[in-house]
Amino acid sequence: MSFDKELEKKAEETEEIIRNYLPKEEGYQKTVIEAMNYSILAGGKRLRPMLAGETYRMFGGSGKLAEPFMAAIEMVHTYSLIHDDLPCMDNDEYRRGRKTAHVVYGEGMAVLAGDGLLNFAFETAVKAFSLAKNEEEMKRAADALAVFAGKAGIYGMIGGQAADIEAEDRKEEVTEEKLIFIHEHKTAALIQSSMMTGAILAGASREEIKKIEKCAYNIGIAFQIQDDILDVTGSLEKLGKQAGSDEKNKKATYVKLKGLEQAKKDADSLSKEAIAIISSFRDRNTFLEELIRYLITREK
Amino acid sequence: MSFDKELEKKAEETEEIIRNYLPKEEGYQKTVIEAMNYSILAGGKRLRPMLAGETYRMFGGSGKLAEPFMAAIEMVHTYSLIHDDLPCMDNDEYRRGRKTAHVVYGEGMAVLAGDGLLNFAFETAVKAFSLAKNEEEMKRAADALAVFAGKAGIYGMIGGQAADIEAEDRKEEVTEEKLIFIHEHKTAALIQSSMMTGAILAGASREEIKKIEKCAYNIGIAFQIQDDILDVTGSLEKLGKQAGSDEKNKKATYVKLKGLEQAKKDADSLSKEAIAIISSFRDRNTFLEELIRYLITREK
Repeated sequence: MSFDKELEKKAEETEEIIRNYLPKEEGYQKTVIEAMNYSILAGGKRLRPMLAGETYRMFGGSGKLAEPFMAAIEMVHTYSLIHDDLPCMDNDEYRRGRKTAHVVYGEGMAVLAGDGLLNFAFETAVKAFSLAKNEEEMKRAADALAVFAGKAGIYGMIGGQAADIEAEDRKEEVTEEKLIFIHEHKTAALIQSSMMTGAILAGASREEIKKIEKCAYNIGIAFQIQDDILDVTGSLEKLGKQAGSDEKNKKATYVKLKGLEQAKKDADSLSKEAIAIISSFRDRNTFLEELIRYLITREK
Repeated sequence: MSFDKELEKKAEETEEIIRNYLPKEEGYQKTVIEAMNYSILAGGKRLRPMLAGETYRMFGGSGKLAEPFMAAIEMVHTYSLIHDDLPCMDNDEYRRGRKTAHVVYGEGMAVLAGDGLLNFAFETAVKAFSLAKNEEEMKRAADALAVFAGKAGIYGMIGGQAADIEAEDRKEEVTEEKLIFIHEHKTAALIQSSMMTGAILAGASREEIKKIEKCAYNIGIAFQIQDDILDVTGSLEKLGKQAGSDEKNKKATYVKLKGLEQAKKDADSLSKEAIAIISSFRDRNTFLEELIRYLITREK
């Protein structure tokens, strides 16, 4: 099967898993649940849960143990978009061609829908405990939950968000160290969460989990540098936004800090290292390797 | 020791436990952590974690297993206040005499501080797994986590919040059933979470946990009815807010729906039942009994 076909098939399977875990739109709290589902069903490639599921498979995982985490990761990703889009944050009225949650449901309800999804991510991940077949799997679920929680919070995604909005508010010059901090936390942390929880649930060793953490870090940073490069070189058609918009927004970017050539070199070497790591394990998952290549060499 | 003295001592012990679990204000994400700690250290009687700890003790719990949950419950309570106070929700500039988080740190940072606290509540509760001494305690931690997550989310506190703001937005007539739904979810759910996690972690039986859930339900509803009664009968001095403010705000209240006399009767019978339940277990905790009595018969 071609990679494109396989990606499509895996995306459908992942979509199915996510839908299985969504709450029913009923009861006096129906509206907030509608707002949650509206946002999570707005589309998206489901790349994070797919990375979780494929890493789980690579380390020999079978059965449904990873599924609650796959759904939970997409919930965390979605809640962060809802809160990001709020008027007091990025103030975006559209995302993926649809009106954002606060435009449709009002700001108060959008705050609650984001809270609801973050909380429901944990309600969902906790369901892995009832799928655990033995004490060993219970322990893995507990370890995965700790990583999942950590990478989503102030030492993960929220930490990156906070540093980012603060830097923008203060219009301060962002150092390379700080820019990498923001990319690592805002973007790489959820990719780490995805791949690490997959590895942990499948019973990967401590050393293997460390390698997966590094691999996912590289993917996240390379992805962001690529984004900065495309902003300079990309065309409106391919990118769906005006090229050069970062420059107009005075946003600190990796390209601005290091120059276009160095940025390309760095993205390339981070990508190569990520691929080298993921190909280094005893059992390989060629779809996962291609998926990672796809993620970091995209042209839009 | 008098109840007041004992309450003071327990409050100090609980405060100490909460502080042990707070994040350090450092790193590029320092500001969001400051906003989180500013809000959680704004005071408050720490009644929810105290209920958790005392229910844990009543069912024979010893050691530190309940402590992460005690801190986590206060974090959930605090994040809900931060988001409640936002301009797009209740738009409150002061709480307990201090400026609210969004006034001090800005709206975007306040949204993130709320998200950060909710997420950190789970990061904290998960630490119970590393305190568990055996498989049995692991299982209890997993069960407690499921209840903790459920009672905080759309089938608990967030569900009540959502129904409440929707009813206010639409200025609709609230039925008794809906008002009870709002009180049960917005207020009683976190009290249930507190007492039930305490009971579960101590190894209470399924039947005992059911009784605790009912007891906490009664406490929450009686507490809210009492609030409505005090709004009508209380003086400004005792209550700290203008008596009759619910009437002015056209807010649906239990007193309005059922009349003052019936409201008093209902609060009284709910309270008596709660006390009867908590006194019915083999081992008793007289401080817990007095604490519950204090909660539902307060005059301010």
